[in-house]
Amino acid sequence: MKKLWGGRFTKSAEEWVDEFGASISFDQELVKEDLEGSIAHVTMLSANGIIGEEDAAKIKQGLKALQEKADKDELSYSVKLEDIHLNLESALTDIVGPVGGKLHTARSRNDQVATDMHLYLKKQVKLIIELIEEMQTALVEQAEANVETVMPGYTHLQRAQPISFGHHLMAYFWMLQRDKERFTESVKRINISPLGAGALAGTTFPIDRYQTAELLGFDGIYENSLDAVSDRDFILEFLSSSSMLMMHLSRLSEEFILWSSQEFQFIELDDSFATGSSIMPQKKNPDMAELIRGKTGRVYGNMMGLLTVLKGLPLAYNKDMQEDKEGMFDTVKTVIGSLKIFAGMIKTMKVKDEQMEKATKNDFSNATELADYLSGKGVPFREAHEIVGKLVLACVQKGCYLGDLPIEEYKEVNTLFENEIYKVLDPYTAVERRNSAGGTGFAQVKLAINKAKSLLKSEEHAV
Amino acid sequence: MKKLWGGRFTKSAEEWVDEFGASISFDQELVKEDLEGSIAHVTMLSANGIIGEEDAAKIKQGLKALQEKADKDELSYSVKLEDIHLNLESALTDIVGPVGGKLHTARSRNDQVATDMHLYLKKQVKLIIELIEEMQTALVEQAEANVETVMPGYTHLQRAQPISFGHHLMAYFWMLQRDKERFTESVKRINISPLGAGALAGTTFPIDRYQTAELLGFDGIYENSLDAVSDRDFILEFLSSSSMLMMHLSRLSEEFILWSSQEFQFIELDDSFATGSSIMPQKKNPDMAELIRGKTGRVYGNMMGLLTVLKGLPLAYNKDMQEDKEGMFDTVKTVIGSLKIFAGMIKTMKVKDEQMEKATKNDFSNATELADYLSGKGVPFREAHEIVGKLVLACVQKGCYLGDLPIEEYKEVNTLFENEIYKVLDPYTAVERRNSAGGTGFAQVKLAINKAKSLLKSEEHAV
Amino acid sequence: MKKLWGGRFTKSAEEWVDEFGASISFDQELVKEDLEGSIAHVTMLSANGIIGEEDAAKIKQGLKALQEKADKDELSYSVKLEDIHLNLESALTDIVGPVGGKLHTARSRNDQVATDMHLYLKKQVKLIIELIEEMQTALVEQAEANVETVMPGYTHLQRAQPISFGHHLMAYFWMLQRDKERFTESVKRINISPLGAGALAGTTFPIDRYQTAELLGFDGIYENSLDAVSDRDFILEFLSSSSMLMMHLSRLSEEFILWSSQEFQFIELDDSFATGSSIMPQKKNPDMAELIRGKTGRVYGNMMGLLTVLKGLPLAYNKDMQEDKEGMFDTVKTVIGSLKIFAGMIKTMKVKDEQMEKATKNDFSNATELADYLSGKGVPFREAHEIVGKLVLACVQKGCYLGDLPIEEYKEVNTLFENEIYKVLDPYTAVERRNSAGGTGFAQVKLAINKAKSLLKSEEHAV
Amino acid sequence: MKKLWGGRFTKSAEEWVDEFGASISFDQELVKEDLEGSIAHVTMLSANGIIGEEDAAKIKQGLKALQEKADKDELSYSVKLEDIHLNLESALTDIVGPVGGKLHTARSRNDQVATDMHLYLKKQVKLIIELIEEMQTALVEQAEANVETVMPGYTHLQRAQPISFGHHLMAYFWMLQRDKERFTESVKRINISPLGAGALAGTTFPIDRYQTAELLGFDGIYENSLDAVSDRDFILEFLSSSSMLMMHLSRLSEEFILWSSQEFQFIELDDSFATGSSIMPQKKNPDMAELIRGKTGRVYGNMMGLLTVLKGLPLAYNKDMQEDKEGMFDTVKTVIGSLKIFAGMIKTMKVKDEQMEKATKNDFSNATELADYLSGKGVPFREAHEIVGKLVLACVQKGCYLGDLPIEEYKEVNTLFENEIYKVLDPYTAVERRNSAGGTGFAQVKLAINKAKSLLKSEEHAV
Repeated sequence: MKKLWGGRFTKSAEEWVDEFGASISFDQELVKEDLEGSIAHVTMLSANGIIGEEDAAKIKQGLKALQEKADKDELSYSVKLEDIHLNLESALTDIVGPVGGKLHTARSRNDQVATDMHLYLKKQVKLIIELIEEMQTALVEQAEANVETVMPGYTHLQRAQPISFGHHLMAYFWMLQRDKERFTESVKRINISPLGAGALAGTTFPIDRYQTAELLGFDGIYENSLDAVSDRDFILEFLSSSSMLMMHLSRLSEEFILWSSQEFQFIELDDSFATGSSIMPQKKNPDMAELIRGKTGRVYGNMMGLLTVLKGLPLAYNKDMQEDKEGMFDTVKTVIGSLKIFAGMIKTMKVKDEQMEKATKNDFSNATELADYLSGKGVPFREAHEIVGKLVLACVQKGCYLGDLPIEEYKEVNTLFENEIYKVLDPYTAVERRNSAGGTGFAQVKLAINKAKSLLKSEEHAV
Repeated sequence: MKKLWGGRFTKSAEEWVDEFGASISFDQELVKEDLEGSIAHVTMLSANGIIGEEDAAKIKQGLKALQEKADKDELSYSVKLEDIHLNLESALTDIVGPVGGKLHTARSRNDQVATDMHLYLKKQVKLIIELIEEMQTALVEQAEANVETVMPGYTHLQRAQPISFGHHLMAYFWMLQRDKERFTESVKRINISPLGAGALAGTTFPIDRYQTAELLGFDGIYENSLDAVSDRDFILEFLSSSSMLMMHLSRLSEEFILWSSQEFQFIELDDSFATGSSIMPQKKNPDMAELIRGKTGRVYGNMMGLLTVLKGLPLAYNKDMQEDKEGMFDTVKTVIGSLKIFAGMIKTMKVKDEQMEKATKNDFSNATELADYLSGKGVPFREAHEIVGKLVLACVQKGCYLGDLPIEEYKEVNTLFENEIYKVLDPYTAVERRNSAGGTGFAQVKLAINKAKSLLKSEEHAV
Repeated sequence: MKKLWGGRFTKSAEEWVDEFGASISFDQELVKEDLEGSIAHVTMLSANGIIGEEDAAKIKQGLKALQEKADKDELSYSVKLEDIHLNLESALTDIVGPVGGKLHTARSRNDQVATDMHLYLKKQVKLIIELIEEMQTALVEQAEANVETVMPGYTHLQRAQPISFGHHLMAYFWMLQRDKERFTESVKRINISPLGAGALAGTTFPIDRYQTAELLGFDGIYENSLDAVSDRDFILEFLSSSSMLMMHLSRLSEEFILWSSQEFQFIELDDSFATGSSIMPQKKNPDMAELIRGKTGRVYGNMMGLLTVLKGLPLAYNKDMQEDKEGMFDTVKTVIGSLKIFAGMIKTMKVKDEQMEKATKNDFSNATELADYLSGKGVPFREAHEIVGKLVLACVQKGCYLGDLPIEEYKEVNTLFENEIYKVLDPYTAVERRNSAGGTGFAQVKLAINKAKSLLKSEEHAV
Repeated sequence: MKKLWGGRFTKSAEEWVDEFGASISFDQELVKEDLEGSIAHVTMLSANGIIGEEDAAKIKQGLKALQEKADKDELSYSVKLEDIHLNLESALTDIVGPVGGKLHTARSRNDQVATDMHLYLKKQVKLIIELIEEMQTALVEQAEANVETVMPGYTHLQRAQPISFGHHLMAYFWMLQRDKERFTESVKRINISPLGAGALAGTTFPIDRYQTAELLGFDGIYENSLDAVSDRDFILEFLSSSSMLMMHLSRLSEEFILWSSQEFQFIELDDSFATGSSIMPQKKNPDMAELIRGKTGRVYGNMMGLLTVLKGLPLAYNKDMQEDKEGMFDTVKTVIGSLKIFAGMIKTMKVKDEQMEKATKNDFSNATELADYLSGKGVPFREAHEIVGKLVLACVQKGCYLGDLPIEEYKEVNTLFENEIYKVLDPYTAVERRNSAGGTGFAQVKLAINKAKSLLKSEEHAV
């Protein structure tokens, strides 16, 4: 083929095309899974008389030799051999000779690559579930240490009502619990075997798909061969669960960044998770939180990318589907790193409880208490609101807070007010009394923490 | 406020701002859920002595009157009253007087709107699950009628191996089965009650969240009040499940469009699902399939939109979250419509089995059979491939197909060939013999259809 | 057709299908453009002898009658007639009789709808450009009033160096300037005529495409008929420009939300653009800023949606492309509303300059000044940094700021320090001295404001 | 810091954190631009008396030594030194000693990295523009060779009207022309200098930003320092232009895939751009077209990713913005590869003109001709359509095409029909006569090709 693009490029057109089409630069990540799959396949072929026992033994020996090399990172790959499958088949034949060619009997790269990815993702998702639990444990520990740490609760980033800092942290525990549920449920659809589906239609050889599935630790097999080779739902589901997880982490990141600012000063991140500036020792950038917030975009993008790839593709395998891998690998790496870093940040951060509490004292976020107080005495809620509104306005005009108004002024407005309101107005009391199920009342928070702990305990060996 | 934007706009600035901020134009979709939620709330308030029985009875009566109006589409809404909640509270007060103001005791719009959406989505997801089953039923029926309809199977849109048309259709059955699993699993996270979480922190009133949850048919309650009002995972999960479902439908759409083309002519869509052209009676545009393929974009976009909204939002409620609704409503409508139309298209389409079978005869898609044949006789697979490759080349040069070569020529190439190969080369036999589990062999397809039918039967009353 | 979906739905299957496929519920937005296009078309047909003058006159009269009705909102539409084109053709024929059927000579709905959308988007983009200028004007005015308002400049949401508030606001001026450039450049590709491309291939009638283009105010025509009917780049480009604009607005929204918090208190939004809480008069939620930040997601989603629709579509028109409209309409509405509201928010907000300045005094954000001071006297920068680092540390240990250290301590550390450093450390001076081109120095900010004002002036009549 | 994640990971927590935060693994792509920028910076510093000439000379020499090493790929990088900037500064100091520390005077990594990316993207975009022209040239050449190659034109993937294959190819020429316009326009916003903006606020040193801009070939400077360091519009714009380009390529990919199928057989791709199957020599998978169609998803995802990153970020620099690079690099690589491969595919593909023409003869896609014929004789278009509809129906019932009906039958239906209709019905004539501006008529196609050629010529030296 003649050279198309002039002197600008040093590679020949053919090399370019090869490189553009080859997947070996990234699918080498699947080397262990590919060898594992091949060993199961050859075991099954021989058990069912499709190839001879002696041949099978030779091939298996060769594959195990490759496994050892892979463990030591001693394998090298060639773009000419396109992908991990052909690279390994070629390496096998180098070791065992032409009999290596029998390995591919009753198999196609279409079912082979799908098998590799199912095996790969199963491992990674299990690791991710463990790391979510690490982070949950860190949250529970910090929450437990801060049940009675009072801070402003926000809506619209405006102070709304005082809450327990432990309660705030526990909100993230439950988000992660849902993430874990989603990842766990997805395992069901990851852990099934496409092996034996062939190119698209199954095979005429008397294979036993249940045997390879069992050897590889799968819970079952794909019921339809076309579906087996063209399904990428399990990756999409992983990307979707990861997107939601990253979204949660981005929200906590945002809070860590806000709380670390000079304006809030609610927490101080450990030096290991922040970078200083070269000239301002007081400056501690919450880099890791920012980076994780940013990496949310990458994971969303990976999901969007694969959804786009699959849109409108006819059955069965199309080369477009080679694009399923890099986004998956990148997401695995991103999610694992983010979870590990977050667990570390939470465990090591310093909670500035005095600063938090101080913040609850200098505002009107206890106004709801007063309204509830009146409402509890029979005043219709909307009316109670109005009364309190006027009181707050009076304070604003005087330059004081609700706790500073004398009881006489309260009584003038409504005779139902009693001296007890000063207790009611105290942020600590306000938090304590908000004791409805799942509320911020200290007793509730302790209950929730205990519930969380026993959940974590029961799940420990479940994965 | 002074007018900012000159004479171009007829509305005043204030009206513009109100309209921009108001949600009533779309959240009126939630009218029934909002009333349902209020009735449960007031029942609980009175049962727990938070408001008097008489007041509660009046309020309930008023709410029921509103339900009747809603059923008859007789309610009217005002942008001034922002959203469905304030519109209904105002309508309630019009009926029952100031006592209506007690309804909002121990409740906030933050937990109220979340409750509405949980109730709404639960209903819709159940309907969607039913419609998926309708479409699955249509697929199974067509598959059953076409077990022995032989067609070319494709990879890379190139003919690869002959398959059963029933087998091809059944691939979509299993995709939908996963969709159904995902929707069903998500119900667990949809069907929990945020009611009673208040603005963000719970309430000081002695409410019973379990009671309202039970009255509303929820399976449980949110364990954390901050999480309850700021969680939108359940909508994201719905959008994600819907995106995957639409992706599947887009793939089948693509196939229907290809199969309806003059080039393929594998199926003919019923007139009800195609539009003619005003001048070409033979032209039948597969409009519905195209439109559904296109609508995939809208659902992807809705998911991407909400993921973006939630990225980096601090707890708890922020106004940004008002943007969760329109994309959800739009997706519900799109998914329901697409499923209904697809069920109809499948049931009514005409399968051109002769055309399909003819297509399998005029190509080399039976070459794999020959390689498998040799391989079955002990020739290493890679070697078998090479031999067949040469035979195909010989055919191409002669302008014939594999079945046209005399046995002598076969034997010249390899003495293992016997007369039986002509049977092996027949597409029908090729399909029949590919009888590995989940393969296209007729026996396998029948098994799969039976499995599918009993799955459908067992799920019928499960929703 | 038999009823497919049981008693759940009140509409017949056929009605459902019709409604699913029809676009009239949203493309009626194009009524004026469609009539405008038809008038130009019929004028051209008659000028080129394709239809008779009398017929043309009748048709034109009919179309003008429809325009009047449209202006008064008196037209009604039917789903049975699918789209705006067939609805209007039918309404025309009702007025003028069978001669109305001649209007569609040498035209197809494919080029007609494309023409409508080009006309529509041209108008909207011009309006958007004007509104961007409104917002830029508001920014310049606030910046001008706040050139010497000193505030902390942030990186990583940590205070970095003091800056001019006017300078900060002007950063957004330049972002909007790029937005305006992009919208303006896109007009070139919006304002070309597809009319006359027919269904896909042009027509055999002796039409004059340049004439219709001129009548409709287009700058030119599509050079290729297939491209003319299948191109949606102009909408994508609009969605992309809008996404970037919304991204900018989301950043300013975030800042407004931060600045309005009790922790920052840098600005106070006007009551018209904030909502109070029913009980806390001091609480002013920056609802509009939050909502605009949230609406960013919707616009991103609309772009992603259309990109998905178009991916992999073969030429020429496919029904999928009907999905181009709703996202475009929604984006137009969102962008227009957001710009108007932002202009208003900026104009009316109260800048709390004392609060901002106070913030610059209580930190080490003037440390860079000291390093620059030393560096200016010949100390290598990295070394200067180290020296200042030690001084800051000393302060932290003493509980004071850099300005509080006596000159002696400075001289002990390095003899190059002189008394003038106290001036250097003053935030106001620090800002003033950062006078490099485009920097925050007051002189630079004034220059930039003047440049901006003359840009705005010169563009005023350019649109 | 204590080890957090047990024995599963071999790296220490700190190493993990470092690696997670470091960008050197990917930003080393910017090594040349970083050195180029530093040379310009030091030149300016010395020219303006900010550092001494001797020092500057030493530093420059050191930087040039690094350039040589970079050219030979002899530089090695360390994760400990985070990014390309600190790695190079450290390497510089190794060569020239402590004076190297003066290089960073009046500069921050914030403006430095922005400068690098502007320099990088400018080069890549220019290369991409050239490659677009390569592909346009390939299209024009194939179009010119196929002006009179007649093929079916499609809407809804149904045959609509016969067209010129050259005309079809030229549709893509114009799409690419718009792509080129967008990339070219974006250069204006890429090719401006952020250098000198400092960390966010400019600097107190008397730098000359215009000088560095000129030295680096920039057309101007950012007018606002905050904007300079926090703007990533230029990357978004690149990703958006690339998304649209890839969308176009995905459409042509789809067509190449369809046309290469056994069902269409309109083209045959050159062996270099297709992969065979190991057993079916007739099977030629259009792998490259599929892969490019698939890679569209990756580019969309990259854009979505960066849009997400930037949403809601306050000014100025935040660590999230480090996420701007990998998606940009990946898109550059994808777009360059796709364009090169497409140019090659187009140049080398074999057009099966006989097959295309044959396809136009066996259908009713000439029905429009007949309607136009009648309409040209004064029959209202809608009426003409009806008449032709009946004729087509008559054909369908007889099992013939329009050209097979005797003139008598035509005259029976309408006396305006003359013998000339047989000429009108010929596909070749049908194409020829569709000679409106931009239409498929051969004369028009030739005109368009000439226009395209002179456009290409005039742009040749414009980049």
